Amino acid sequence: VVSFQPSEHQHVRYNPLRDDWVLVSAHRMRRPWQGQVEKPPQEDVPRCDLSNPLCPGAARANGEVNPQYTSTFVFDNDFPALQPDAPEPDACSHPLFRAASARGVCKVMCFHPRSDLTLPLMSLAEIRAVIDKWAELAVELGASYPWVQIFENKGAMMGCSNPHPHCQVWASNFLPNEARLEDRTQQQHLQERGVPMLLEYARLEAQRKERLVVENADWLVVVPYWAVWPFQTLLLPRRHVCRLQELSDGERDSLASIMKRLLTKYDNLFEISFPYSMGWHGAPTGPHLGADCGHWQLHAHYYPPLLRSATVRKFMVGYEMLAQAQRDLTPEQAAERLRTLPEEHYRARPR
Amino acid sequence: VVSFQPSEHQHVRYNPLRDDWVLVSAHRMRRPWQGQVEKPPQEDVPRCDLSNPLCPGAARANGEVNPQYTSTFVFDNDFPALQPDAPEPDACSHPLFRAASARGVCKVMCFHPRSDLTLPLMSLAEIRAVIDKWAELAVELGASYPWVQIFENKGAMMGCSNPHPHCQVWASNFLPNEARLEDRTQQQHLQERGVPMLLEYARLEAQRKERLVVENADWLVVVPYWAVWPFQTLLLPRRHVCRLQELSDGERDSLASIMKRLLTKYDNLFEISFPYSMGWHGAPTGPHLGADCGHWQLHAHYYPPLLRSATVRKFMVGYEMLAQAQRDLTPEQAAERLRTLPEEHYRARPR
Ligand SMILES: O=P(O)(O)O[C@H]1O[C@H](CO)[C@@H](O)[C@H](O)[C@H]1O
Ligand SMILES: O=P(O)(O)O[C@H]1O[C@H](CO)[C@@H](O)[C@H](O)[C@H]1O
Repeated sequence: VVSFQPSEHQHVRYNPLRDDWVLVSAHRMRRPWQGQVEKPPQEDVPRCDLSNPLCPGAARANGEVNPQYTSTFVFDNDFPALQPDAPEPDACSHPLFRAASARGVCKVMCFHPRSDLTLPLMSLAEIRAVIDKWAELAVELGASYPWVQIFENKGAMMGCSNPHPHCQVWASNFLPNEARLEDRTQQQHLQERGVPMLLEYARLEAQRKERLVVENADWLVVVPYWAVWPFQTLLLPRRHVCRLQELSDGERDSLASIMKRLLTKYDNLFEISFPYSMGWHGAPTGPHLGADCGHWQLHAHYYPPLLRSATVRKFMVGYEMLAQAQRDLTPEQAAERLRTLPEEHYRARPR
Repeated sequence: VVSFQPSEHQHVRYNPLRDDWVLVSAHRMRRPWQGQVEKPPQEDVPRCDLSNPLCPGAARANGEVNPQYTSTFVFDNDFPALQPDAPEPDACSHPLFRAASARGVCKVMCFHPRSDLTLPLMSLAEIRAVIDKWAELAVELGASYPWVQIFENKGAMMGCSNPHPHCQVWASNFLPNEARLEDRTQQQHLQERGVPMLLEYARLEAQRKERLVVENADWLVVVPYWAVWPFQTLLLPRRHVCRLQELSDGERDSLASIMKRLLTKYDNLFEISFPYSMGWHGAPTGPHLGADCGHWQLHAHYYPPLLRSATVRKFMVGYEMLAQAQRDLTPEQAAERLRTLPEEHYRARPR
């Protein structure tokens, strides 16, 4: 009998945070790729371009002129998907036609005045300023809104329409799907095992090490056992933390450091500015601020689309959309590749 | 007070089939697009090219030579994500590290010997042959496998690496996520309301008409009330049907007809060969063949990525991946655009 090898034999893995499964078929990497190739990311972004609405001193769509900001800069999205004052939909006529109100705000946050930088190319102090601003917005918008979604779409491949380093913050009067799902699974885990799911998970991964990418005294980054995207990672605190705003000074500094290390490795993987969508999940806010959040553990998800090279992505299409996500290398293989990459950025190396 | 207008005021809608929500922010269509543009689909595919492994007479990766087929042609995927004989993973060491066996088969099905055709350009008899072959594979693979996923990735934008008209059929020894989800929601609906969810839904949409795209005596196509992709549609039978193989002769002919009409409209929308992923969902098979499938209703989902034009797609990224899907036009607006398009294919019209 053949003994089971995760890198040779397809299998499914359970994602306890989403209560679903992923098909792992690592032998599929051997298949030649003849499909679509992507444009590699633009590498020659000008440092400052006044026609770019995110630059200091540039005019935005609504005519406002940005200040000469020198660190982070936050403004209201000029084309928000969520506005604070939409009227309530009419009462539902039938259970198959249910609508509900959606109110909120959408903000854009520039990370740095320079357009030619990205987080891994910024200094630790500059990344720390981003983290502080995230925490500030989480408090400010979380005072009334139940969910504050901080997310970064990086790279044109991820629908990002502006190369200037920035993220978005969308706050809503409802718990979005992913929030409801993680709330339920984490609650159930705490009930069943008496320990927050992602705290238990981080401790186990710190011991097992095979999916570790980087770690420090306060944080660790793993390719989760149930990762869907080829180089997907999960950034976890080592102690129990419900929300970004609870992080101490020291934890914010060590977060800046681990982010810089992770993102440098990402860029080094294919020697390009690595595209991804990332975002923070933490305990709900607004009306939930008084509730018990013992089951929640703060974490960030990184979802990068690339699979084989700077120009060949993983397509989550047909089978994935209609049946179940499928991946072409094991999480352990992905983690090992990321782990062994240098922590010095390829653009900082002498040519 | 302002009265609620779905096309002006953002709101959320409930998807009863997936038990989740979509954010509808139709006013976002006004935002200018400065992000990534796609390559329009290749329009000059040669009728036959022996270097294309899907053509009659061509050699495939494994050295086999395709027969001179004249209708559909099915063969085993040369790089299958599922194989019939993978060994069982080791027993799970911990509830956060759960793996299970995955066994199955992956087949490729060519629709037609000509590479320069697509379903909407094929004759009704030729489309009918595709439907018959689908039903045949559903019976054959469904004899032992619990789930037989028939799906088509169309266009390079949807990860399709070969322009020859074809689909795939992946059968598995497990119920994939989407199947488990739809099984649960349809079961619950039947219990609560005494009628299969999608049968009730089709009847209501046939009356309401605002989301109808095309219909005939046996079938209807709607942009579902809870659509996520801009021009997503749902193809539904009017009577209660659990599985493809139950369709009568007449229903297969009328299915060929409604598919041709829908796909012609899709191509006419931006006057290109419209990319999408589509697939069939029906009652589980294999060990489930004896079970009651009264809650199931056969249906096909069409998930097309384009939003504004042949080259501007909807990106399901940051907020969508981390929080909740968001759409930029209402399902009613999408349905109206599709409904009013001609049913004659743009390539068949005199220039
Ligand atoms: O099998 P293909 O067409 O080579 O591959 C395509 O469809 C598969 C099933 O949806 C996906 O897993 C792949 O990412 C995609 O590129
Ligand atoms: O707001 P942006 O960056 O213009 O838009 C991008 O991110 C949004 C939030 O993830 C998505 O809804 C859009 O499809 C995407 O293009």
